[in-house]
Amino acid sequence: MRLLASTDLALRVLMRLSTAPDQHVSTDVLARELVMSRNHLHKIVQFLTEAGFLRTVRGAHGGVMLAMPADKIRIGDVIRRHEQNQSLVECFRSDGGACTLLPVCRLRGMLAGAQQAFYQHLDGKTLADCVASSGAPTHELPKPARAREAERRGA
Amino acid sequence: MRLLASTDLALRVLMRLSTAPDQHVSTDVLARELVMSRNHLHKIVQFLTEAGFLRTVRGAHGGVMLAMPADKIRIGDVIRRHEQNQSLVECFRSDGGACTLLPVCRLRGMLAGAQQAFYQHLDGKTLADCVASSGAPTHELPKPARAREAERRGA
Repeated sequence: MRLLASTDLALRVLMRLSTAPDQHVSTDVLARELVMSRNHLHKIVQFLTEAGFLRTVRGAHGGVMLAMPADKIRIGDVIRRHEQNQSLVECFRSDGGACTLLPVCRLRGMLAGAQQAFYQHLDGKTLADCVASSGAPTHELPKPARAREAERRGA
Repeated sequence: MRLLASTDLALRVLMRLSTAPDQHVSTDVLARELVMSRNHLHKIVQFLTEAGFLRTVRGAHGGVMLAMPADKIRIGDVIRRHEQNQSLVECFRSDGGACTLLPVCRLRGMLAGAQQAFYQHLDGKTLADCVASSGAPTHELPKPARAREAERRGA
């Protein structure tokens, strides 16, 4: 079971912005801190803004910030909206797929129920629950796990 | 959210075999009925056999059949085993990924909980629950949805 890589990145953007909810952050700074390409980030910011989770601050020193308090952003909502065009299996596609068993199949309903259980679990969690209270200082974000491992090995 | 296409196909193989649990079916017949390549089917049968869900009957008229009653095969078990090397998001990978937020992140635990809710839903369902009681006659499997649609349009 996999989520889109861009769903993962969208959640990271929201988590980073939740650490300083009253400040706007430039996309250059976000891209650098979260180690993602500006092109990917641009698409993700566009989705999050259109979905109402972010708002943009225009101008030379502009950027993006949360559009609502972190405890109002449900993780289930973010993932559900970003994954809405994904099909869990072939028969979930809008064209129905090509499975020969479909007319006698009850598996589809079971899988839909399991998918609903996944989202229901995350509907009870908000962005505010995601970041440990020790905080993530905006100028001292931890290094990626692979970088730490490389350092440990003396690379 | 997506499952592997091969997980979907593995479930179809089990569903097809559950319609005639006392008979073995050749892989040629299975590939034709389920409209999948023999190469894909071979890998799926290998997985299902190694996992203990299928057994093979050798010989010129050999084939495969369920290794246990359909009501003993839990759908959650089949999917969990086939997807065991998949990572829901990057930080679920065995190398930990490269997310800079990991040390302060509680999202990972939430996502693991949601994944568990998905599988728990399917642990309560068995292969016997998957096929409607109207049955799927082995020689009269329904046509794929797209083929039916093409016929409807007079193609």
